[in-house]
Amino acid sequence: MTTTNFSLLMALLLCTGGAARAQDKKLTGYTGNAATQQLELENRFDKQLSSSHIGETIKALSSQPHHIGSARGKAVAEDILQRFKSYGWDAEIVTYQVLFPTPKERLVELKGSTTYKALLKEPALKEDATSGQEGQLPTYNAWSADGDVEGELVYVNYGLPEDYEYLDRAGINVKGKIVIAKYGRSWRGSKPKVAQEHGAAGCIIYSDPKDDGYYSGDVYPKGAFKNEYGVQRGSVMDIVIYPGDPLTPNTGATANAQRLDRLQAPNLLKIPVLPISYHDATPLLQALEGPVAPDEWKGALPFTYHIGGGKARVHLKLSFDWQIRPCYNVIAKLKGSEQPDQWVIRGNHHDAWVNGAADPISGLAALLEEAKAIGALHKQGYQPKRTLVYCAWDGEEPGLLGSTEWVEDHAAELKEKAVVYINSDNNGRGFLNASGSHALETLVNEVARDITDPQTQVSILARKQASEVLKAATPKLKKEKLAKQGIAIGAMGSGSDYSSFLQHLGVPSLDFGFGGEDAGGEYHSIYDSYDDYTRFKDPGFNYGVALSQTAGHTALRVANTVTLPFDYRKLYETVNGYVNELTELTSSLRESTTIENQLIRDRKYQLTTDTAKHLSPPLLKSEVPYLDFSPLQNALTGLDTVTTSLAARKQFSAAANKALYQGEQQLLNDAGLPARSWYKHTLYAPGFYTGYGVKTIPGVREAIEQRRWKEAQEQIGIVAAAINRLSAYLGNIH
Amino acid sequence: MTTTNFSLLMALLLCTGGAARAQDKKLTGYTGNAATQQLELENRFDKQLSSSHIGETIKALSSQPHHIGSARGKAVAEDILQRFKSYGWDAEIVTYQVLFPTPKERLVELKGSTTYKALLKEPALKEDATSGQEGQLPTYNAWSADGDVEGELVYVNYGLPEDYEYLDRAGINVKGKIVIAKYGRSWRGSKPKVAQEHGAAGCIIYSDPKDDGYYSGDVYPKGAFKNEYGVQRGSVMDIVIYPGDPLTPNTGATANAQRLDRLQAPNLLKIPVLPISYHDATPLLQALEGPVAPDEWKGALPFTYHIGGGKARVHLKLSFDWQIRPCYNVIAKLKGSEQPDQWVIRGNHHDAWVNGAADPISGLAALLEEAKAIGALHKQGYQPKRTLVYCAWDGEEPGLLGSTEWVEDHAAELKEKAVVYINSDNNGRGFLNASGSHALETLVNEVARDITDPQTQVSILARKQASEVLKAATPKLKKEKLAKQGIAIGAMGSGSDYSSFLQHLGVPSLDFGFGGEDAGGEYHSIYDSYDDYTRFKDPGFNYGVALSQTAGHTALRVANTVTLPFDYRKLYETVNGYVNELTELTSSLRESTTIENQLIRDRKYQLTTDTAKHLSPPLLKSEVPYLDFSPLQNALTGLDTVTTSLAARKQFSAAANKALYQGEQQLLNDAGLPARSWYKHTLYAPGFYTGYGVKTIPGVREAIEQRRWKEAQEQIGIVAAAINRLSAYLGNIH
Repeated sequence: MTTTNFSLLMALLLCTGGAARAQDKKLTGYTGNAATQQLELENRFDKQLSSSHIGETIKALSSQPHHIGSARGKAVAEDILQRFKSYGWDAEIVTYQVLFPTPKERLVELKGSTTYKALLKEPALKEDATSGQEGQLPTYNAWSADGDVEGELVYVNYGLPEDYEYLDRAGINVKGKIVIAKYGRSWRGSKPKVAQEHGAAGCIIYSDPKDDGYYSGDVYPKGAFKNEYGVQRGSVMDIVIYPGDPLTPNTGATANAQRLDRLQAPNLLKIPVLPISYHDATPLLQALEGPVAPDEWKGALPFTYHIGGGKARVHLKLSFDWQIRPCYNVIAKLKGSEQPDQWVIRGNHHDAWVNGAADPISGLAALLEEAKAIGALHKQGYQPKRTLVYCAWDGEEPGLLGSTEWVEDHAAELKEKAVVYINSDNNGRGFLNASGSHALETLVNEVARDITDPQTQVSILARKQASEVLKAATPKLKKEKLAKQGIAIGAMGSGSDYSSFLQHLGVPSLDFGFGGEDAGGEYHSIYDSYDDYTRFKDPGFNYGVALSQTAGHTALRVANTVTLPFDYRKLYETVNGYVNELTELTSSLRESTTIENQLIRDRKYQLTTDTAKHLSPPLLKSEVPYLDFSPLQNALTGLDTVTTSLAARKQFSAAANKALYQGEQQLLNDAGLPARSWYKHTLYAPGFYTGYGVKTIPGVREAIEQRRWKEAQEQIGIVAAAINRLSAYLGNIH
Repeated sequence: MTTTNFSLLMALLLCTGGAARAQDKKLTGYTGNAATQQLELENRFDKQLSSSHIGETIKALSSQPHHIGSARGKAVAEDILQRFKSYGWDAEIVTYQVLFPTPKERLVELKGSTTYKALLKEPALKEDATSGQEGQLPTYNAWSADGDVEGELVYVNYGLPEDYEYLDRAGINVKGKIVIAKYGRSWRGSKPKVAQEHGAAGCIIYSDPKDDGYYSGDVYPKGAFKNEYGVQRGSVMDIVIYPGDPLTPNTGATANAQRLDRLQAPNLLKIPVLPISYHDATPLLQALEGPVAPDEWKGALPFTYHIGGGKARVHLKLSFDWQIRPCYNVIAKLKGSEQPDQWVIRGNHHDAWVNGAADPISGLAALLEEAKAIGALHKQGYQPKRTLVYCAWDGEEPGLLGSTEWVEDHAAELKEKAVVYINSDNNGRGFLNASGSHALETLVNEVARDITDPQTQVSILARKQASEVLKAATPKLKKEKLAKQGIAIGAMGSGSDYSSFLQHLGVPSLDFGFGGEDAGGEYHSIYDSYDDYTRFKDPGFNYGVALSQTAGHTALRVANTVTLPFDYRKLYETVNGYVNELTELTSSLRESTTIENQLIRDRKYQLTTDTAKHLSPPLLKSEVPYLDFSPLQNALTGLDTVTTSLAARKQFSAAANKALYQGEQQLLNDAGLPARSWYKHTLYAPGFYTGYGVKTIPGVREAIEQRRWKEAQEQIGIVAAAINRLSAYLGNIH
């Protein structure tokens, strides 16, 4: 095609699939020429964004290792503070005192006919300028217990509860043994937790090249994927109980706060756990004997995976310094002209495991670019109606420490003032990922509609929709997705700083990031560097600009509007979908339980399982009773009615606007979720065993999944009551 | 559990799940006390079977390499002849003169920055007594063309047509290049055939450890799976055009038969092809550059799989001796007392690629054990009503040479006399696998009902049923399978000696074998040895006895009955299922084509595919028209009626009995399948691109799959006519 034809095509695309013309655009919450003014403001905002400046910010802030508690970590916070100030924001550092352990001693050795001492070290590479720096945290899992244990080694696949069910069938017990699990499928912290529940004495986690290494593509530095020495650091705090400083649940970790005894903290492990590379894992796995692992357990290392049961023993010795360290949150404000006590909060953490060019600096650089652009507009006379609060959190990596302590410390104020919390974390080339409160789904769609994808020149909404269509598994689902208007936003689990806002306080929240074409193995390693980022993540920093636009437009649209852009119809539709999922889950679990129990009773497993494998049949499971879902279904009928009439309203009073954002708090249950009272939201929580992975309507869903039928029925009542509260509350908005 | 309790349990099982009591048993075709007499005969037959004697036979006949044309191959035929004679059978060797090439020269070398010369040799192992013997055929693919070619190397996954579609999207052309494909998914002969269709100059096939090696389990000799040097030999004759001697299609390869010019034989390749080990494949694959292979293409070797496009070049040089060699079939008969001109034929090949303890001797030993047992009964006065014809085929490995030439040579006689052909090949520990003519499905079920599985003490039918229930993917399908009476037998593709009987002549056929717990990597290698067999396949030879029982009881029940045990209701039900599959296939293909074409036209692929991958969208496909299935559906209605009334009949005349077995011939179409006239059966054929894998109603199914809509409609008419012929024919049975 000639250049002329190509330009014509592009012009055509910009008219059809690209950003729509201003006069066609609906901005929820904006009436009359307010929409046009807002779009003009966003246009001026966009002009202030510079991909090269984002690149410079990433380079500067990731130039040294800067974990929480390090001198460089403090310097990064101060650098950010100065940036905010230079942009004209009112900024300060808010400090908490949090526990954060770093290693004193790390040892993994294989004993038996083959011996091996693990390297536990990622080598410096000449192709990666920062990889040989001083000040790197060694490879470890923060919040491992101290321990000096030795035992037989057992391979437990991903270390999921169902993996231990299989071990039981194979007659292998992990009591007093060391388990080796691979990263993936569940959050890393779930692996030692489940191992501990089964009596293991210690836990090793390794990155299998099937999931994170040469199987995916060429390894670093030739390609982006994990080389044999790369290790994923990371927290194993049991954040599904509560995140933040483990010594100060529910309160800010101020200098004088009351603190738990560390050994009593309910979200800390009792056993030692350490992550290792696949280089270090190879001799350990090769030493295993006993049954061959089932196919689903096999990785990409070049030998037969065995479960264990032979003579391979492992010695694991770990100790940590367990120090209280300062945690520096940077908080910057730009006061609202009309509703200064309504806060639009935007945040991204600044601490990294090592250099963290992608995680978190790529997201933080976009946030700072927004602050820079808004500051420039402010200097030209722009003032938001509501107060903008831009935050750079410390201590996210060990367990959302900075954000959680700040939120717990300001809980009452935030419940009053926080209109929305907009989070980001790492960012790269690809597709928009958006999750959060579903009353904000319409807003997200309208924002995404108006931003152009840097690679394809269509809107980021159209590109995301296209990817959802292609990902659909069947022609039927593809057709459905194709017919659908807009995109659904995801539900929030955990793993970044939105958790305390949404799940502890009920602040409406959003999380944005681009990705999907930026895969690699650098996560939480020394290779998450500027060199890696510019080669494999977002070479031109154009997705940095796209993130600034996405989060910035969102913040500005919420800050500048008269009527807040909440659309509770979307919340209704989403929850309705969840309830359908729960009823279907219960039915399908009932059906599969009945037939599986019959197969077990009829000895079909004994007849079919290779007798040479010595595999017991599965255990009988409790039959699934019929649950009474009617309280939830009736509550949904009420929500349907009230949200329909709310959606028809055009004008809201100032008080009504406040009620719109405080509505989310009606969905909290004061008592929290079963066995984890910190989590109060009835719709969204990280899964008890999945960790980061979300469970929607978690009280009911997890009770069903874990076969606690009485609890499931109770939780149906609790969630129905929350929805009824919300309906009554929304019905009172005038 | 105590021993007493255990015995009690076993006794209980024998009553409930095990072989049913004689008075409960229905034997189709047997009335009055004939059934009891037959069961008594089978009981006496069983008593003659000896697992240890089967083991001795396997050891003796696999003691040396014995491929077709070798001195030891001839000696094995003569040994078998003597055995039949000693058992009291009337036996002879029937010799044909067939083309069979063995290698003169084999060379694979990698050129470029890394060079490598492939070993092409499986080493002798001290743990395997026969692995170092003289007389082994080298590792090669029989029927490769001679060739001396050099070219860029391209990795083509399994070498399926859709793999080349992906290569097209990636902009990689194989014209004039050497392709490397892995074993699996398609029959080996399809790989060079498809490569040749795409213009490749040569083809290398290797065994990836993901499919055949350490991924599955410990490698030989520690375990059963393929070690790094193991190579799968095998034929690449295009047997889906026709099997047998490539120079004498449709006629017996007698000494004076008219022969084609070899270079004109339509089922022989024009390009060279060679199989190699994963040891030899490793440097070749590692030298590849270009795009990373998609996930579905990746194997288990410890590096990133690339497709190619770099500097890696391969030199492949092969030449063969192309000699005409004698092919020794051993044919043994035991004359029928009442219907001597009705033949119950039983066969298994005797030639092996090397020692062939499993393939074919494990099946042949069971066949000889049957002959021994029947001979012993005969000496005690037993005489079958119909003539038993027991056959040991030569030259099966290169392309079903012996059986095909004998069948072609005796075509007219077999169409008159052959009641059934019962095949076996290799055999091992596990589950009954049965496939064949569906009018014999009831017979197979009744036979399997009465044989006890050596490991679980339930019937082999109950064990197979249990495995089918557990294999069902969803609770719903499990429930359906559980409710089902009996087992469905499979449809026949190709890959063993039944092909010419069923697909060329329309002789009702069956194929039996046990397996599923005998997996390993010895197939067509020097390690298919007695040592391997006794460690990993069927250590006690008890499944050898089970195979003798299954095939023997089947042969005896057909030979001894007054009324032949054909049940055309099962044929009707099965074909009805196939027609439903075809209508669903057409609908789902229409649905997927429409949506895929829409996605392509709407540029969804361009918007979604990582721009860094330079992957073109798929090509638009022809939309799927509505086909007129009514001729088939009406034909099925007719077959339904006639088979229902046939099933109600109790007595058949002698002529009617003959008509029952000759009915299958009504399903032949004289013109054969499109582009392969040798295959005349309208219901069963090996797939044009799957090779061994069956395609049912192949004329219609393959036309649909390959989007030849006019041909599909024509074939619907042809198959409907065949079914109508059968209905009319069965309606005339009196």
